[in-house]
Parts: sequence; C-alpha cells; structure tokens
Amino acid sequence: MSLVVVGSMAFDAIETPFGKSDKIIGGAGTYIAWCASNYTPVKQISVVGGDFPQSELDDLAARNVNLEGVQIKKDEKTFFWSGRYHMDMNSRDTLDTQLNVLENFQPVVPESYQDCEFLMLGNLVPAVQRSVIEQLRTRPKLIVMDTMNFWMEIAMDELKKTLAMVDVLMVNDSEARQLSGDYSLVRAAATIMKMGPKYVIIKKGEHGALLFHADKVFFAPALPLEEVFDPTGAGDTFAGGFIGHLAKTKDISFENMKTAIIIGSAMASFCVEKFGTQRLKEVTKQEVDQRLSEFVQLVNFDITLN
Amino acid sequence: MSLVVVGSMAFDAIETPFGKSDKIIGGAGTYIAWCASNYTPVKQISVVGGDFPQSELDDLAARNVNLEGVQIKKDEKTFFWSGRYHMDMNSRDTLDTQLNVLENFQPVVPESYQDCEFLMLGNLVPAVQRSVIEQLRTRPKLIVMDTMNFWMEIAMDELKKTLAMVDVLMVNDSEARQLSGDYSLVRAAATIMKMGPKYVIIKKGEHGALLFHADKVFFAPALPLEEVFDPTGAGDTFAGGFIGHLAKTKDISFENMKTAIIIGSAMASFCVEKFGTQRLKEVTKQEVDQRLSEFVQLVNFDITLN
Repeated sequence: MSLVVVGSMAFDAIETPFGKSDKIIGGAGTYIAWCASNYTPVKQISVVGGDFPQSELDDLAARNVNLEGVQIKKDEKTFFWSGRYHMDMNSRDTLDTQLNVLENFQPVVPESYQDCEFLMLGNLVPAVQRSVIEQLRTRPKLIVMDTMNFWMEIAMDELKKTLAMVDVLMVNDSEARQLSGDYSLVRAAATIMKMGPKYVIIKKGEHGALLFHADKVFFAPALPLEEVFDPTGAGDTFAGGFIGHLAKTKDISFENMKTAIIIGSAMASFCVEKFGTQRLKEVTKQEVDQRLSEFVQLVNFDITLN
Repeated sequence: MSLVVVGSMAFDAIETPFGKSDKIIGGAGTYIAWCASNYTPVKQISVVGGDFPQSELDDLAARNVNLEGVQIKKDEKTFFWSGRYHMDMNSRDTLDTQLNVLENFQPVVPESYQDCEFLMLGNLVPAVQRSVIEQLRTRPKLIVMDTMNFWMEIAMDELKKTLAMVDVLMVNDSEARQLSGDYSLVRAAATIMKMGPKYVIIKKGEHGALLFHADKVFFAPALPLEEVFDPTGAGDTFAGGFIGHLAKTKDISFENMKTAIIIGSAMASFCVEKFGTQRLKEVTKQEVDQRLSEFVQLVNFDITLN
C-alpha cells in the first residue's frame, strides 16, 4: 500500500520584497514529494523536460521517492513559472507562465502504483488529476485534491467533475470564496462539501488554516515568523506534510487530520524561510519536533467552565 | 480593590454590506463596561452630553457599573461617529466624527475610585488616558491600554508618553505596524515592548489575536462565523472580556492572560452578531460557556513527539 503524488515539477523564478531568485527548482509535485518523504515513501507522477537536472531527480530518489511515473520528455522544456510577491506575501502577480511539457501531459499510472492507498492530487489541470483517479483500479482510501483560482477561471466544469470524486479539497480563502460564490468561509465550506469532498481545508497563509467536516471545524494557526522570505510552495509543503502523516499513520479520522494539519503547518513554516525547496531539503527531525512543540505552546490554554 | 474603565460613551451610525443602523449607542467605554461587568463590578470614567439617554446609564448602573466618574454635560452633545464597513469587515471608512463633549474632556477620578487595582484605558486621547494614571495615588496592579491609528497620526509623542506607563498594549495588526515601523508582527511586538509595555496584544479581527511577552507568544483564533453583521465594538468587547476576567481572578500571569484572551474573543464573537451593543446586552452565561467550549474544540489537537 502506498502514497501516490501527482503534481508539476518545474522551474520557478521568484521576486519578493526581500530579493530575487535565479531560475530554481519548483512545482507542486516537487514540494509535496520533498515534504511527504519525511514521513513515508512516495510514488511520484509528473512530467519534466530534458532540461530538468538529473541531480534533482537523484536527490528525490535517494529520499525514497519512486520516479517511475515521472515522464522525461528529452526534446521538450520543463514547465516554467515566474512571479512577484507583494509586501503582505499573501498576494502575487504572475510574470510569466510557460506550460511547455505540461501542455499535453497525459499521466500514465505505472502498474507498480496500483497499490495506491493515499492519493495526493497536487495543483494541476483538473482533467489530468481525474485521469489518475480513473486509472487506479481500486479506489484509494483517501483522495486529497489541491487546486487554484486559475482552473476555476478556465476549466470550472472540469474542476467540478474531479472535485466530485475526492475526499478532501484544499484551497486558499479567496479560492474557497470563488468556488462557492460565498464570502463567508463557514458557508463556503458547507457549499463545497455539497460538491463532493467530505472534508474542506481552507488555507489562509500567515493566518493559519481551517478544516471543516460535517458540522465540525478545526483551526490551525500559522507560526508567527519574524520573516517570510519566500512563500512559494508553502501550500504544497503543507499538503505534503498533511498527506505524509496520514499515509504514515493510515488513520483518516478527523482527529488525526487535525494532527496532520499541524504537521503540514510546521513544515510550511520551514519552507518559507528560504527560496524554493532549499530549506525543506536541509531540515532535520529535531528541528521539526522543536517546531511542533512551538505549535503546542502557541495555542495551548486553560478554560475551566463553572 | 476595583476595576476602573476609561473610554468614550457615544452615538454611532453604522453602515455594513448587510444593513444600516439608526443612531445607536456606542463608544469604547460602553462596550468595555457591558462586557467586563459580566465578570466584575466596573468603575466607569467617561463624558456624555445632555442628549445621552438616561435609560442607558440606568441599564449600566443595574449591571454594577459605577457611574460616579461619568461627567454629564447637560448643554453639550455626546461624541458621534459614523462609519461604513467594506465587504471584508476588516477595513472601514469614517464618514463623520463629531467630538462634541470629548473635545475638552478632563477626566476626574472620584475619590472612591482610588482603590483601582486594574485600569483599562479604552481607546481615547492619549493625554486623557495618561491623566487618569497620574490621578491615581497608588499605581494599579495592571494597566491595559487600547489605542488606534488616528492618535498615531496626530499625537504620536503623547501616545508614546502614555505607552511608557502601561503594562499591556492592545492594537490591531496595521496599528502595530504603524507604531513600530516594522511589517513583521513578531518584530513589531518586540519593538513595542521596548517602548514600555511588557505585554503586547495584536488583534487581527477574523484572523484572531496574538499575545507577546518577552520571548513567548500565544495565538487565540477567532471563531469562524457564518456572518459578521457589525464589527463595531468587537475590539472594545475583547478588551472588556480580557480585563474583566483578569480583575475577577486577580491573576496577571501569562497563563491567565491566555485564558483572558479566549474569553475576550468569545465575547467579541457575540458582539458582531448584531448592530451595536444589542447582542452583548442579552447574552447569557450559558451561551458564553457554550462558545468557550467551541474555542476549546476549535484549537484542540494531539501531537505526540517521538
């Protein structure tokens, strides 16, 4: 039984108020794999061009990330995204998008991935996400989907078809509002749960994340950081920590999802400290445990009702 | 030993995306008194004009709010504020401000208030706040100050003088940034703590509140609400719950401040459900207890480090 991750592997060029990166490795699938592989082996599905560094693939393989499902299109170029963050780091402008290999990406699920128990659909064309679900002969125990406003604008119908097949949707607050047509996040979550997923996670960046399920709600804070250097990949890292913990523990109860969200938040708090995947690659178990205990301290209080 | 509250008592006229109020009762001092009096008797310092309804004063007196320090200027008019909220309810435009009785307000601390142990300085002219501190012969055990961007713009030096004399400062996130000149809230709090207060509470509206003290930080979420009807007074209500709980328990430890912040947040979640002080006036102990248990559920998670 295994965790399968679908998502882009890419080049990014990032500008923030604090600096500018070179063309560095990015992509939802990359961040998810780096993070989830701290908890459990990963079977990756993605596509890259001939320009994608073999050393990056080797690094992932060394982390127990199976790359059999990663297509390498020797004569094509890897997906490229360039963006600039505003001062609040919650909003950004896309400066350039070159789909390249993503334009005609047809994922192929290797036979060895058919034992998939946990499926993480990183942000990607909704039809591609659905194609992976449909290629699996046994439905996974849990399917988690990330998506973004871009697909709501150009492929809402496709997105809703995929949405109807998943268990957990992860979006940010403005995407939840766009998808539901409701400003209130509580009502937005209720509306989205009627579209298919039984769980909705709404990410609010520096303001934390909310998990909704039936009439229950859980709030996970983000760690107050002195500096957010580069938020790129924070949401994907969050997803990686979330699915990694669930796949490791094989427990998909609401209680365990709460723990998984805290772990995702802790991992995301490392991601934003440096450009790209740099910090994620070097973080140690001791550092993660230290940060998890900071989360416990952060929200721990005593109310005695009498 | 007692709780003394200083703050405006006013008329407000409010527009939100959901409706428009008549000219209703408002003012920081009013909200604080209504909320804190759930926990402990209040000795109020304020000023109103001859147009302020006697029935409102009677209602407060019936709640054990001592009004000896509330000046009634028979021939003048009560402070009036009118504002319009935007869709996100975190930002608002002031449409009209008529200082009236506040223009030349000289607070006089009655002799019977000299036993003040807890002093809550609601948002008001910084020099007026300081005048109350200076009139008290024995320094209170805890002085909490609320303020706002308006005073930072027109009276920053005065504000800093008062700030240097208090124990706890409460501001919202944009005010913390303005006061400190730092965008990072973690660094902003550190800067403000060098200006006098040993504790800084940064309110983030629907995104909760942060309490900083030395190198410690606590985060209290806001309850995710289906609808925020009118956020006016939410910050004052939060202050009232905070100081009310501290004054009742007479415990000013960091741990108890955490509890006080949760109580303030719970009370604020009622305040925003209706226009003005209406919801605060009718809320029952059972409802507050129910909401406090919702806060416990909201952030309760299990992390076992191994």
